Amino acid sequence: MASVPAFRAGDSAGELSGAWQQVRSLTERLAGPLSPEDQVVQTMPDVSPTKWHLAHTTWFFEHFVLQPNLADYPPFDERWHYLFNSYYYSVGQMHARNDRGLLSRPTVAQILAWRAHVDAAMQPLLERAEDDTELAFLIRLGLNHEQQHQELLLTDIKHVLWSNPLGPAYDEALPAPPAGPATPLSFIERAATEAPIGADANQGFCFDNETPRHRVALRAHALANRLVTNAEYRAFIDDGGYREPHWWLADGWGCVEAQRWQRPLYWSEDSTLEFTLRGWRPLVDEAPVSHVSFYEADAYARWAGARLPTEAEWEAAAADVPVSGNLLERGWLHPAPATQPGLSQLFGDTWEWTASPYMAYPGFKPLAGSLGEYNGKFMCNQLSVRGGSCLSSANHLRASYRSFFYPHQRWQMLGFRLAKDPD
Amino acid sequence: MASVPAFRAGDSAGELSGAWQQVRSLTERLAGPLSPEDQVVQTMPDVSPTKWHLAHTTWFFEHFVLQPNLADYPPFDERWHYLFNSYYYSVGQMHARNDRGLLSRPTVAQILAWRAHVDAAMQPLLERAEDDTELAFLIRLGLNHEQQHQELLLTDIKHVLWSNPLGPAYDEALPAPPAGPATPLSFIERAATEAPIGADANQGFCFDNETPRHRVALRAHALANRLVTNAEYRAFIDDGGYREPHWWLADGWGCVEAQRWQRPLYWSEDSTLEFTLRGWRPLVDEAPVSHVSFYEADAYARWAGARLPTEAEWEAAAADVPVSGNLLERGWLHPAPATQPGLSQLFGDTWEWTASPYMAYPGFKPLAGSLGEYNGKFMCNQLSVRGGSCLSSANHLRASYRSFFYPHQRWQMLGFRLAKDPD
Amino acid sequence: MASVPAFRAGDSAGELSGAWQQVRSLTERLAGPLSPEDQVVQTMPDVSPTKWHLAHTTWFFEHFVLQPNLADYPPFDERWHYLFNSYYYSVGQMHARNDRGLLSRPTVAQILAWRAHVDAAMQPLLERAEDDTELAFLIRLGLNHEQQHQELLLTDIKHVLWSNPLGPAYDEALPAPPAGPATPLSFIERAATEAPIGADANQGFCFDNETPRHRVALRAHALANRLVTNAEYRAFIDDGGYREPHWWLADGWGCVEAQRWQRPLYWSEDSTLEFTLRGWRPLVDEAPVSHVSFYEADAYARWAGARLPTEAEWEAAAADVPVSGNLLERGWLHPAPATQPGLSQLFGDTWEWTASPYMAYPGFKPLAGSLGEYNGKFMCNQLSVRGGSCLSSANHLRASYRSFFYPHQRWQMLGFRLAKDPD
Amino acid sequence: MASVPAFRAGDSAGELSGAWQQVRSLTERLAGPLSPEDQVVQTMPDVSPTKWHLAHTTWFFEHFVLQPNLADYPPFDERWHYLFNSYYYSVGQMHARNDRGLLSRPTVAQILAWRAHVDAAMQPLLERAEDDTELAFLIRLGLNHEQQHQELLLTDIKHVLWSNPLGPAYDEALPAPPAGPATPLSFIERAATEAPIGADANQGFCFDNETPRHRVALRAHALANRLVTNAEYRAFIDDGGYREPHWWLADGWGCVEAQRWQRPLYWSEDSTLEFTLRGWRPLVDEAPVSHVSFYEADAYARWAGARLPTEAEWEAAAADVPVSGNLLERGWLHPAPATQPGLSQLFGDTWEWTASPYMAYPGFKPLAGSLGEYNGKFMCNQLSVRGGSCLSSANHLRASYRSFFYPHQRWQMLGFRLAKDPD
Repeated sequence: MASVPAFRAGDSAGELSGAWQQVRSLTERLAGPLSPEDQVVQTMPDVSPTKWHLAHTTWFFEHFVLQPNLADYPPFDERWHYLFNSYYYSVGQMHARNDRGLLSRPTVAQILAWRAHVDAAMQPLLERAEDDTELAFLIRLGLNHEQQHQELLLTDIKHVLWSNPLGPAYDEALPAPPAGPATPLSFIERAATEAPIGADANQGFCFDNETPRHRVALRAHALANRLVTNAEYRAFIDDGGYREPHWWLADGWGCVEAQRWQRPLYWSEDSTLEFTLRGWRPLVDEAPVSHVSFYEADAYARWAGARLPTEAEWEAAAADVPVSGNLLERGWLHPAPATQPGLSQLFGDTWEWTASPYMAYPGFKPLAGSLGEYNGKFMCNQLSVRGGSCLSSANHLRASYRSFFYPHQRWQMLGFRLAKDPD
Repeated sequence: MASVPAFRAGDSAGELSGAWQQVRSLTERLAGPLSPEDQVVQTMPDVSPTKWHLAHTTWFFEHFVLQPNLADYPPFDERWHYLFNSYYYSVGQMHARNDRGLLSRPTVAQILAWRAHVDAAMQPLLERAEDDTELAFLIRLGLNHEQQHQELLLTDIKHVLWSNPLGPAYDEALPAPPAGPATPLSFIERAATEAPIGADANQGFCFDNETPRHRVALRAHALANRLVTNAEYRAFIDDGGYREPHWWLADGWGCVEAQRWQRPLYWSEDSTLEFTLRGWRPLVDEAPVSHVSFYEADAYARWAGARLPTEAEWEAAAADVPVSGNLLERGWLHPAPATQPGLSQLFGDTWEWTASPYMAYPGFKPLAGSLGEYNGKFMCNQLSVRGGSCLSSANHLRASYRSFFYPHQRWQMLGFRLAKDPD
Repeated sequence: MASVPAFRAGDSAGELSGAWQQVRSLTERLAGPLSPEDQVVQTMPDVSPTKWHLAHTTWFFEHFVLQPNLADYPPFDERWHYLFNSYYYSVGQMHARNDRGLLSRPTVAQILAWRAHVDAAMQPLLERAEDDTELAFLIRLGLNHEQQHQELLLTDIKHVLWSNPLGPAYDEALPAPPAGPATPLSFIERAATEAPIGADANQGFCFDNETPRHRVALRAHALANRLVTNAEYRAFIDDGGYREPHWWLADGWGCVEAQRWQRPLYWSEDSTLEFTLRGWRPLVDEAPVSHVSFYEADAYARWAGARLPTEAEWEAAAADVPVSGNLLERGWLHPAPATQPGLSQLFGDTWEWTASPYMAYPGFKPLAGSLGEYNGKFMCNQLSVRGGSCLSSANHLRASYRSFFYPHQRWQMLGFRLAKDPD
Repeated sequence: MASVPAFRAGDSAGELSGAWQQVRSLTERLAGPLSPEDQVVQTMPDVSPTKWHLAHTTWFFEHFVLQPNLADYPPFDERWHYLFNSYYYSVGQMHARNDRGLLSRPTVAQILAWRAHVDAAMQPLLERAEDDTELAFLIRLGLNHEQQHQELLLTDIKHVLWSNPLGPAYDEALPAPPAGPATPLSFIERAATEAPIGADANQGFCFDNETPRHRVALRAHALANRLVTNAEYRAFIDDGGYREPHWWLADGWGCVEAQRWQRPLYWSEDSTLEFTLRGWRPLVDEAPVSHVSFYEADAYARWAGARLPTEAEWEAAAADVPVSGNLLERGWLHPAPATQPGLSQLFGDTWEWTASPYMAYPGFKPLAGSLGEYNGKFMCNQLSVRGGSCLSSANHLRASYRSFFYPHQRWQMLGFRLAKDPD
């Protein structure tokens, strides 16, 4: 895991060409430690096989960039479009999401050949994008899309390997995050204010769901200085947290009972080990708890006499904080104890559940055409999560960046921070 | 269906006694047209049998009011508490919601005897409540709770009767709503403002989820003067609305495909008839469309180049409007065409889907104790609906009243109104 | 439960008229202790509501006897045919079996009126049948069909009442079966032989699945003198029988794990009580075990170093035994300890699982027309059971009588007897 | 697909050593055309991944032969036993059958290394078996077991490839079966007799379920000279066979409706193409219909005024017929038109559904110990099938050989032959 050169998707076209090379090759490097067999498996509907990610990100460029912009571009295999379209109905029908693991073909080697074919075909367009801001945006969008799938590739293969009783590691040679105590928990008070929230589409690349930028009134509140740790979360478990409906939302309790949840997803039954991309490892008390659902985060917060922050509270706090921390570039691929003073761990380590349903900002307009299906159609039943994780590239994140998951989902690198109202 | 004398739950204790008599007897009158057989059936998990409603509302008083406040009160049958607790985990375990239709006992006659037993036992408490505001609140809460179940009783039995190939009417003798044209559709512009939203708990009865009252910034927008009609909705169907994923949220399209939705719940396959509490009746073009899900309302709005209002927009518009219209007292038990000028149908006819996820207001505190389970634990995955319906009692509603349903639910009396942003 | 006069369905037409009155009125007497609410509920797909049995048996006569044979017979309500056809596809479509409990209408009173209407209309046909053997057969078939539903009515309502946490009795006033020790278990040796099996359709009424009569070679074997008792079965449980896959057929073990079976269907968790038509009662050690599946009977037999008898072995042993024992007429409605010397409990107490898949006898021809759907189309995946139960009418049974159930089914009055091969 | 030297498992130990080499290497040759990705996928619970077959057959030898018989044998990886035990509960717990496709590790290469390790370790045991008939039997059992999995490997990968919208071939270079007309259909009369059925365990290798040899009385009947063809089966479809419940067993009709069956498993929607191991190919009218369930075979037979043969009728007819025909050695891997006079296609082409439930022969004793789980515990809910298929090795079959499938299963190479009773 060599480091990834910084890339601002909103940067100049010269940098776009470099970014192309870096992002595309990183995807393949991330798949590098995996056998062809590893790249086929889908362990549940949320998970996609590694080779599906390799192919889908390539389909995105072939379909949305090459075919509309290169008159005589020969698609590598037209039949594959059906297989690797994810959810763009306006583009045509698609293979069922739940059946992605039933596809042994195309093989990994065939998909890598497709990637090379597309990489070669893109070269003239990368040049043309110097004078074509619309084309440049499309390519930037595709690269940011591919970066999202880089994180999914890692979280999905983690689930695949964990599902195997042999518990194989993604890469035994990954460096261990440093051990050591976490910064003590404290709450940082934040005065009432009216904060600007969201991104200005003219100020560098952003997704449509971050727009329009608008002002939000915030009440006085306090934010925890860091993420909740494994040790803190274990106290909730030890206090009977998973047996007491009082702490849970009704739908959350339904999940606890139906799924028989008793601890975070990747903890061993005795709560001493945790499955990581380095395989089963001793659970580090001081590291942030990860792979918990919104329901668990929300129940913990209630038990702790606190609540989750809203996404506006989070964004206002992160607005002037540089995007740095335990991110993909650091190469640990696992959360690590907080060591910085002040408000820390805003970026990296784990995505942070917020209390905010993921919905359109006032006046939101999705992208025109098929790409309008990218974000807007998911604005129901999900919660906003913020800040990226140890599996996110630094140049992919922003304070205004919104990702979103269903409240029961745990397979992503998801943790949380507490907030409090004034007494 | 004689009319129900007006009752403000926040009124004086003298009126509480009268309200008791009126609300309790109305529940029994609503069950009046039904045979014992009708009162047993549960056609899907969302539906409860009529006799379950008769019993559960009585359990509420026995458990939350009589047992804590009458030292020597003898419960009618302690074993029934397990059967008729709905979801109050802090009070004990309960019978599975999905299995309510498996219970032939207690019989309707036994449950009516229980109701009489509780009614008699409540008399001294109704007197004592004159000097005990906490007790008075509890009783008011129980009566409002029972009014909610009156509406559920009607919507649930409607589903039961509709599920029967014989299509029997709840009451053939119900008066038909008047026919005739609806007021033409127009949009009423509303300037940007900062509006007070929610209820002040010290100003008459309200539910905890309406508090605290707080100010919300609203952008300029326009609200439709009335609800969307059957004829308007049919144009969406005729335009292929149920075959075109473009109009739908992703989860909504999933529902359309899984449930094979092609029209509102109670329409006949040829879209000429509608199942009502008077049985199958010709569909009235000018009446509001009803029994549609949030997904359908949202898809229609997108198709129509509009959107759904937020709950704050709705409440700001309704704040000074008296609670009147096609409500339970009118006795039609079915939506009717809009006939009033200006902003109409805010109260009654159908509940209105809003674009707002049902969530806590800033600084929300649930009721103390077990009754804190009443509302707060549902603040996830549901949408706020507003305004009541033709099955709601007038004295049960307020502009700040929030009900809530999952986006896929259709068995309630649910319709919608359009909103628009300025161009 | 007054006793039922003897009725041989193959008797003369004069007796047919008496039989009509007796069978039809017995059905209504069996429903007598039940409230209308009791008669609506369906607790699982195998169970039908009481009022469905009252109606379906009446539909059988209206459809198969009255309409073809009485030119101007007015059906009571043609729409009900769709509701109460069970599985005769050649007659038309039918209401889904799983949804029988969703029907509140027609009410019990309406169905009883239908019964009276049909009873009256049948009078001329009962007379005409004196000279019309085909008509007489049809009526006899209908009466035997109704007798089958009498037993189902009792086993189905038992499941309904058991599913209710209140555990109400069908009839508290039923007499208790006598207590006391069971005859000691012994094995009666039976020499190799070639036995005639099945019924001769010209020798009194029989079902088509008992024909043709044919010879079967039987090897030497031994049959247990009586049914396996509760105490004997408990020893299997205490020996870990439900935790040891070794004793079970593969599909049986699948059931044990999926259904978490740990004991017979109606035993209390501590194995001290049993649910009966008189409600929860102490488990009687010496009485036959009942409400066990084929899988459980088969596993027990393997554990006991024995096997189940084949249906031919059973029939050869029962061929000359009079149909008497603990049958419906005795009025206990529950199995009782064996007290007779020799081969006992062949008829009554519980149906006996055999090792024989239910299949066509060599040369089998189903009844012509729609009634050919009565038996033949179930000749797959089921096992033959023999001998009737304490819920069967004596005049309904014969040594050649074959009933059949799926190997996982337990809600019927099902027990078993052991057999052994010579060492 | 080179031909496989003849191997009688009951032959002398010298031949055992040769058989070992031939059977084990054939398995690997059968997996030869497949990529690692192909070997991972499980498309439904009935299907196992190719690499699972490679591993499971090897586990069988490691667990049942090497560990008990080679004192210092080091298991290759003890943890793999949990993964590759199929259903031998007496040996320990096992990985869930439905989850076999979730295992990316061990990889194909690791499993092939395991196979080589076991092959090497077996050499001394193959020598020792010259003087140890019990050990020789165990090895023969393991080789016959592996031959069963060779057929499963092919039928499972066929399902995997068919499930892929790309429809890739297992091996495009396979020879096409010869085209041309089929022998005309005729019925060969067979007189009543008492036939010896089953195998004598002392006369060469057989499975326990073929014993004991016993006599069965057969009535006069007639057997079709060949298998039912695609053209004949299509006439049933064209006559509305899949829309008419009259022809079907009740459970079969349930399957037709639930699974929406309209044609054999691997036919294209327009009934012109068939998926084969050479990919999609024109359907050959004269070839035997294959990949039909028992329910379809039974319904077709009823429609055709015939029935399926019993397994005893089949075996009596096949008793003196040499095992030859369109078998694995021929290398077509697909059924071909009948060309021989007289009773043909008894062996090879497709397995033949019989009317006989798969059950124990009178006096059946399963193998002692864990291997008793091999066959006996499946003697419920399945039907006997006979004669092997174009995917079976000739030296694996016998007239007394019984395989068995559930009546709804279609993914195996299953067809059928008609039988008739005398008029």
